[in-house]
Amino acid sequence: MKVAVAQLNYTIGAFDANKMKIVDAIEKAKKAGADVAVFAEYAISGAPAYDLLNKVQFLEMCEEALVEIAAFCDNITVVIGLPIQHSHNTLSAAAIIQNRRVVSFVTKHDIERRDEAAYLTAGDGCEYFFINGHKVAVVLGHDIASTDFVRATDTVIFLDSDRWRRRRIERRYAFMAERGYVTERNIVYVNQLGGHTDTIYDGSSAVFNHRGEAIALLESFKEDFVVVDLDADNKPIEIPYQDKTVNTMCAIKLGLGDFFAKNGFKSACLGLSGGIDSAVVAAIAADVLGPENVRVLLMPSQFSSDHSVEDSIALAKNLGIKYDIVPITDAYNLVTEAMAPIFGAENEFGVAEENIQSRLRSVLLMALSNKYGDVLLNTTNKSELALGFSTLYGDSAGVLSILGDVYKRDVYALAHLINREKDIIPESIIEKEPSAELRPDQKDIDYMPPYDVVDAIIYRMLEEGQSREEIINAGFDSDVVHKIYGNILRNAQKRYQFCPVLRISHCTFGKDRIMPLTSKYGF
Amino acid sequence: MKVAVAQLNYTIGAFDANKMKIVDAIEKAKKAGADVAVFAEYAISGAPAYDLLNKVQFLEMCEEALVEIAAFCDNITVVIGLPIQHSHNTLSAAAIIQNRRVVSFVTKHDIERRDEAAYLTAGDGCEYFFINGHKVAVVLGHDIASTDFVRATDTVIFLDSDRWRRRRIERRYAFMAERGYVTERNIVYVNQLGGHTDTIYDGSSAVFNHRGEAIALLESFKEDFVVVDLDADNKPIEIPYQDKTVNTMCAIKLGLGDFFAKNGFKSACLGLSGGIDSAVVAAIAADVLGPENVRVLLMPSQFSSDHSVEDSIALAKNLGIKYDIVPITDAYNLVTEAMAPIFGAENEFGVAEENIQSRLRSVLLMALSNKYGDVLLNTTNKSELALGFSTLYGDSAGVLSILGDVYKRDVYALAHLINREKDIIPESIIEKEPSAELRPDQKDIDYMPPYDVVDAIIYRMLEEGQSREEIINAGFDSDVVHKIYGNILRNAQKRYQFCPVLRISHCTFGKDRIMPLTSKYGF
Repeated sequence: MKVAVAQLNYTIGAFDANKMKIVDAIEKAKKAGADVAVFAEYAISGAPAYDLLNKVQFLEMCEEALVEIAAFCDNITVVIGLPIQHSHNTLSAAAIIQNRRVVSFVTKHDIERRDEAAYLTAGDGCEYFFINGHKVAVVLGHDIASTDFVRATDTVIFLDSDRWRRRRIERRYAFMAERGYVTERNIVYVNQLGGHTDTIYDGSSAVFNHRGEAIALLESFKEDFVVVDLDADNKPIEIPYQDKTVNTMCAIKLGLGDFFAKNGFKSACLGLSGGIDSAVVAAIAADVLGPENVRVLLMPSQFSSDHSVEDSIALAKNLGIKYDIVPITDAYNLVTEAMAPIFGAENEFGVAEENIQSRLRSVLLMALSNKYGDVLLNTTNKSELALGFSTLYGDSAGVLSILGDVYKRDVYALAHLINREKDIIPESIIEKEPSAELRPDQKDIDYMPPYDVVDAIIYRMLEEGQSREEIINAGFDSDVVHKIYGNILRNAQKRYQFCPVLRISHCTFGKDRIMPLTSKYGF
Repeated sequence: MKVAVAQLNYTIGAFDANKMKIVDAIEKAKKAGADVAVFAEYAISGAPAYDLLNKVQFLEMCEEALVEIAAFCDNITVVIGLPIQHSHNTLSAAAIIQNRRVVSFVTKHDIERRDEAAYLTAGDGCEYFFINGHKVAVVLGHDIASTDFVRATDTVIFLDSDRWRRRRIERRYAFMAERGYVTERNIVYVNQLGGHTDTIYDGSSAVFNHRGEAIALLESFKEDFVVVDLDADNKPIEIPYQDKTVNTMCAIKLGLGDFFAKNGFKSACLGLSGGIDSAVVAAIAADVLGPENVRVLLMPSQFSSDHSVEDSIALAKNLGIKYDIVPITDAYNLVTEAMAPIFGAENEFGVAEENIQSRLRSVLLMALSNKYGDVLLNTTNKSELALGFSTLYGDSAGVLSILGDVYKRDVYALAHLINREKDIIPESIIEKEPSAELRPDQKDIDYMPPYDVVDAIIYRMLEEGQSREEIINAGFDSDVVHKIYGNILRNAQKRYQFCPVLRISHCTFGKDRIMPLTSKYGF
């Protein structure tokens, strides 16, 4: 049995465009003599579609597209994912097309993911079909783990829409190797691919044989198409090493690129502070969008160090992006003078004065954005987002955050990756001590321990779900743990208004961790 | 059988405070000779607790509080709601306490609400107990609609956590009258009460007899406690008329008051534009928080009409709140001059220049907020939020939006209610044509049809889920419908960064309607 695996980058609700991609792949599969072509879960609709899954018209358009696709399926079986309606409920289904007709729907039983729980109803799970004399099981998502396949099955077609996050590819490969070996069946895995605002699908579709060996691995983070003859003597392929930083970079580039391409955005702007975060964002944006489409502002105040401006100019020149220098000192003085009669004796320099600087910078950046349609990119990293080290409506502004789920230590790793071949980001930016430069000689370290300690505590709290007590018992300083915990809880209101964040970790703020903003619980 | 119904305002995670309230009510019930005291779903934990429902420590603290409460339950049965853990899942349960011991848990079967679907697992549903010789059914939430009660039952104890929204109280009463009549059983209904960030529970607990007549109605929007003898000859109570505007006002006041009280906030600030939205927000804030805790800024630009400032001063004086005037003209000129070299020939007055004014105002308001700890209240209404008639990081700023789910036409109704006894909001503010005053002689009506048309279309789209086609078929102008639909879809990215909104309607942006930000679907 020859299986064609089509890993395509769909757009939510772009029925015509998705259909054309699908039909092209079916034609390719037919030419290659494939018996069956398989597509991801939600191929026709795109994913994640959230409340669109409850719109009757959206579901009807999915089914119309399916019928149109079926017309091309002569001499081939096609297995393709879409959401369907069933007695006022929505189910995730795999349509089985044979002889140009939709012969059946397999529906997903285990609704495991929290974003699906609110929209989907459980279906019946695994079903079986004959394709060219082979008995084939078709399952969606988590059902593969809970199904005991009937005896005569030799192959499992497994449709999925599993978003990328750190270490996900290696875990998925390991899972399929184990499933193939334990069930003694071929596993044909096809996953979604592409960026959809914050959600990034990596693809990494694969075929594993009944000994648990990989016999086809599709690209990660790219469209791909392969045809595998399951009856042939396929040589096992070694699972390639997965570099954490390289994969993170690929995911960010796919997420950023698709956000612009699928929303019809072209150009971006951001502020360069002279720090590492904005430098990394600028470098990635220039790479993905083209240097001609990235424009930066350098907005020094009286507290900015001289080398902040020099370093930023050097970076902008290395990247070949447009830059302008707009000092904010006069505007800052004017605003503080305007508020002086109100503040009266309380006009000592404090947080209010620090934040005025950061917010004036966002006034300038947003003016640029409004004037030219440049999309403002946020530059906050996950460690800052956790601690509240950003100014609401100031440097927390932006339409998309590409580093908001990347720890500070990993921002350094990305910077080194960017500089691997030549010094694109000036060394002095990478070596500079982290500072907001909102008051004289300010350093992040005056407020918090070094970022490697901070990152380790945040990681344990968010991604391992540890309590304060557990982290302290693991050897971390009690005062530091309480301080960081307190900061994270106190800044939930600020994070509530943060822009979408490309999801990189298992626990992205706002998506995987939704806490009541009004609560006395603090453990 | 004497039943005590305790409708209390809990705080999420405030185990000691919640426990003390509960124990007080149990003591009162015992003194009144009640056989059973009933408390709302999630009484011990507070609701909605979101991801706290998946924290083992949170659930353990709920169960510890339950055991402590049980110690006070001599000579009385207590039925009380809390989340419990059961083989790695979380269930919503009613604990049954008899003779100081937790004798059983009834668990909720139907997980209907989208916010629960992501956190809860379905339990077994209705169970039965003997209380003083009576066979009593205990159910939670939606289970009351799907349960066929066994023959010998005479009373149903119904624990709920049903948030308020428009027309909800009358519908709930009608439902219980119907349930009482159809099942021929007494219904003892106890609901959550209080504001929790955006979610407002109205209470409105009630006892209906087996003929479907109300025999006890607890207060809406307030704590209350009643004891009813179900065996006595209770006179039916007439269901009071529910005024839409009065209820909306009560809900907003409860939501705003609890947001401040439960978060430990004291004082608020906002900008007064001379328009009706900020006037209504200031009046409600002064009423709820006390005029001494509300501070406003008047920030005219060269485009502000003279009467904007005069009207705002009159309003501030009527309310007895602090006000200051800080013109933004100089700051606006400075910023536009700073950007002039970049904008070059493109520095014609446009959206960028409009928004600079709005954003500078938020710089001033946030400086005030940072200096004095005043919580910035947002003044955007639902119609503006839908259309995108607010400036991101400008007048869209704020920690809480109290009008973000209130249509423009209903803002007028609130203003008239505020002025019912005397003219608190100057007539000229109410009569003024809506305008952002960001360019000469600007009026909202230049961009959109009148708000009563806009509101009707938005209502149909959001709350009735109608497509463009359906709304046009209902007689609305096709161009207008497409324009409003386009605006609503296009401004999703702006709404993503909006603050929490007190939920007033069936479909609050961001909570009841979550759409992919990257999508080609536009129907």
